[in-house]
Amino acid sequence: MLAEIITIGDEILIGQIVDSNSAFIAKELNKIGVSVYQITSVQDDQTHILKALSEAEANADIVILTGGLGPTKDDITKKTIAEYFDDTLIENTSVRKNIEHIWNVFVKKPLKQVNIDQALVPSKADVLMNKYGSAPGMWLEKENTVFISLPGVPYEMKALMEDEVIPKLRTRFKFPYIAHKTFLTYGLGESVLAERIETFENELPYFIKLAYLPSLGRVRLRLSAKGEDKHTIETEMRKQTDILLPQISDVFVGFEDDLSIEAVLGKHLTQLNKSVATAESCTGGLIAERFTANPGASKYFKGSIVSYTKETKVNLLKVSEELIDDHSVVSAQVAEAMASNALTLLNVDYAIATTGNAGPTKDDTAEDLGVVYIAVATKEKVYSEQFSFGNHRIKVINKAANKAFEMLQKEILKK
Amino acid sequence: MLAEIITIGDEILIGQIVDSNSAFIAKELNKIGVSVYQITSVQDDQTHILKALSEAEANADIVILTGGLGPTKDDITKKTIAEYFDDTLIENTSVRKNIEHIWNVFVKKPLKQVNIDQALVPSKADVLMNKYGSAPGMWLEKENTVFISLPGVPYEMKALMEDEVIPKLRTRFKFPYIAHKTFLTYGLGESVLAERIETFENELPYFIKLAYLPSLGRVRLRLSAKGEDKHTIETEMRKQTDILLPQISDVFVGFEDDLSIEAVLGKHLTQLNKSVATAESCTGGLIAERFTANPGASKYFKGSIVSYTKETKVNLLKVSEELIDDHSVVSAQVAEAMASNALTLLNVDYAIATTGNAGPTKDDTAEDLGVVYIAVATKEKVYSEQFSFGNHRIKVINKAANKAFEMLQKEILKK
Repeated sequence: MLAEIITIGDEILIGQIVDSNSAFIAKELNKIGVSVYQITSVQDDQTHILKALSEAEANADIVILTGGLGPTKDDITKKTIAEYFDDTLIENTSVRKNIEHIWNVFVKKPLKQVNIDQALVPSKADVLMNKYGSAPGMWLEKENTVFISLPGVPYEMKALMEDEVIPKLRTRFKFPYIAHKTFLTYGLGESVLAERIETFENELPYFIKLAYLPSLGRVRLRLSAKGEDKHTIETEMRKQTDILLPQISDVFVGFEDDLSIEAVLGKHLTQLNKSVATAESCTGGLIAERFTANPGASKYFKGSIVSYTKETKVNLLKVSEELIDDHSVVSAQVAEAMASNALTLLNVDYAIATTGNAGPTKDDTAEDLGVVYIAVATKEKVYSEQFSFGNHRIKVINKAANKAFEMLQKEILKK
Repeated sequence: MLAEIITIGDEILIGQIVDSNSAFIAKELNKIGVSVYQITSVQDDQTHILKALSEAEANADIVILTGGLGPTKDDITKKTIAEYFDDTLIENTSVRKNIEHIWNVFVKKPLKQVNIDQALVPSKADVLMNKYGSAPGMWLEKENTVFISLPGVPYEMKALMEDEVIPKLRTRFKFPYIAHKTFLTYGLGESVLAERIETFENELPYFIKLAYLPSLGRVRLRLSAKGEDKHTIETEMRKQTDILLPQISDVFVGFEDDLSIEAVLGKHLTQLNKSVATAESCTGGLIAERFTANPGASKYFKGSIVSYTKETKVNLLKVSEELIDDHSVVSAQVAEAMASNALTLLNVDYAIATTGNAGPTKDDTAEDLGVVYIAVATKEKVYSEQFSFGNHRIKVINKAANKAFEMLQKEILKK
C-alpha cells in the first residue's frame, strides 16, 4: 500500500517554514503499514496542485494533502480539489456549527464572511471534524485512490491524523504488516559500523531492509520489515536481532522507541522517584528545556542554573573563583564543581553540568574550540569527561546535551 | 529562474527525520532571486531518483539534491548521478586528501575503504569542498540545467550552500531582482487582518504578492516582488509599504529580517551594553537556550534560574513561601518576584520571568491550563501580564517564550 504526501504553500517553497507535517504523517502511515512513496511540496497555485494530484494518483492508493486551507485568499486548495473532482463547494452544517462554536467560546469576536466560508466543502467530500480550528479535514475518493486534505497548522493536523484519518483508513483498507526495530548505538562512526556488519546486511532476507541514521554522535540502525504475515515478519525480525546484537554489543545502548532519550530518562527517574537538576554553561539551558518539554517533568526535574558568565558561576552557583582562575572556566574541575554545587543547591539526587567553548570563535580559555567538559554528580560521587565536538556552534551545543543525557542514563542504569 | 530541490532518503519518507534542509536551501535561493518550483522527497532508490532528476530537469534551471552521500551502502545518490550523466566514478585527489586530513586530525582511527570511497565522484563533476565532513558536494551541468548534489548533514550542507553553491551560482547566472518585506503583527487573527486589507491586496501590482504567515500568536504579512529592474521593484515596494502601514498600525510591531527576535534583542543589548537574565518556570530554560544559541550571547546574557518546583523557587530564587501560598505559584505576584529576584541575584539590567500551566493536565493551582504570567524587571520597575495560550503543551511553552521576548523588546525600545 503506497501513499503520497503533498504539502501546499508558498511559505514552504520560500523557506519561511520547515515542513514538519510530512514527517508526522509519514510516521503515522508507516505504523499501520503504509509506505510513503514521495513527499511533494508545491506552490499555492491551481495548475501546480492539479498536476501534483494527478501524478500522486498515478502512484498512490492514499494521497494526503496539507496546507492551503486558511481563510485568506492565498489559500486555494479547496477550490482546486473541487475542480479535480469536478465538484462544487457547498456549505457543511456541522462545520458551520463548529466555526460558530469556536468563535463564541475562544475568539469572542464577530464572525466574518471569510470564516463562514471555511464551512464550504466539496459536495462529494466526507468532512473530518477539526477539534482545534475552523478548517475542516476532507476525505474524497476517486477510482480506488483516497484523497485526504488536512489543514497545515501542525497541532490541528496531528489531532485529525490520530483521531480521524488513521481510524478511517483502517476501516477502509486491509494493510500489510510492517515492523521497525531501531538499535541505538554510540561511539562508532557510520562507516566503521557498516564495515563491521557488512555480512549481516548482505545476508538479510529480501523483505528486511537495514538503514543507517547517524545524528550528532550516535548512529541508529533501523531494520524494517514488511509482509502479509505478521508471524513470519516477527519471527524473522527476532532472528535478525539475535544475529546483529552480539556484533554491536560494545556500542549498543538500547532499542529506540518513539521516545527521546530525555523522555526515557524521565520515565526512569519517575519510576525510581529520583530528582535531577542541571548546571549549564555552554548548553545554555538546552538540557533543562529538553527535560521540561515532556509532560510530567516537574515530578523529577527541579530546575537549572544556567551560568553563562564567570560572575554567575561564582555568585549564584558558588563555584570558587580560585578554582576557575587555576583551571580555567572550561575544565574538568569547574564542570565537577558546577555539578556538585547544583546537586546541593537544588537538593537533587543527580546533577549534570556542562562547560565548554561552543564557538564560533575561541574565547580566552586554554581549551580549543568545541571542547566541552560534562560532569555528573550523585550523592556519592562526581566525575566528568572531556569531549571535542568540532567547530560548529549549534552542533557543539546539541552534541553536548545529547552526551549529557547519555552520561546520566548510564549512571542511572548502573543501579 | 526556477529551481527544484530533491531530498533523498528513506528516513524522510518514514518520518524518522524532519527535512529542514529544504527550507534552508529555498531561503538561500530566494535571496538571490531564484524561485523554488517544487520540493520532492524521494526514496533511496535508483529508479525513483532518476525519475525525480528527469522531472526536475524539465521544470528547473537549477536542481539541488541533498542526502544519500554517506559512506554506507544505503546511500546510492552518487552512483545514480553518474548513471544519469552517463558517467563513471573516479577518485578525486583533493577529496581524498580532505578525508585523510579529517581522519588524522579529528577521527584518529584507521581510514576504512568505505571512507576512501567517498572520494569517488562522477568524472564530469566539479567538486565543492566540504569543510565539515567527508562527503563532497558536486556540481554538474546538462543542457543548461545545473545539478548540485550536497550531503544531507545539515551543518555540512549549510556551509556548502553559503560558501560554495551561492557564489558559484552568482557567477554562472544573471538573476532577476527579488525583494521580500515581512510585516510582523500581533493581536489580530489571519482572517480579520485579511478582511481589513482586502482592498490593498486586490490593488497590488501583478509582480507583488502578499502572503499570510500565521504562527503562535503572530501573523507575518509578507510582500514579495520580482522583476528585472531593481529600481522599479524597490520603488513599488516602498510605495506599497506606505499604503499598508497605516492600515495595520495598531498591530504592527516591526519589520522582520532574517534574524530571530532573540538575535535582534541580542544586538540591541550589545549596542546598549546592557545585560539580561531569566527566571523560568513553565518555559523550562527555553528562553535561555534561545538567547545562547546566538554567537556572542555571553556579552549580554548572564544566566538563568530555571525553577521548576516550588522548592527551587523558594530556596534558589528566594521567592517568599508566603507569597506563593497566598497567590499560588501561577500568579502575577510570583512572576514579578521571580523577575525582581533574578535581576538582583544575577546582577543584570533586565530580567524576564515566566510561570504558568503548560499542561497537558491542570495542576493544583487556581489558574486554568495554558495561563501564563510573564514579568519584566528593570532596575526601576517590575510589571507582568497574564496570557492564555491554549491547551497544547509545546504551543504554550513556545508562545510564552515568544511573548517574553516581545515584552522585553518593547521595554528596551521604550528607552
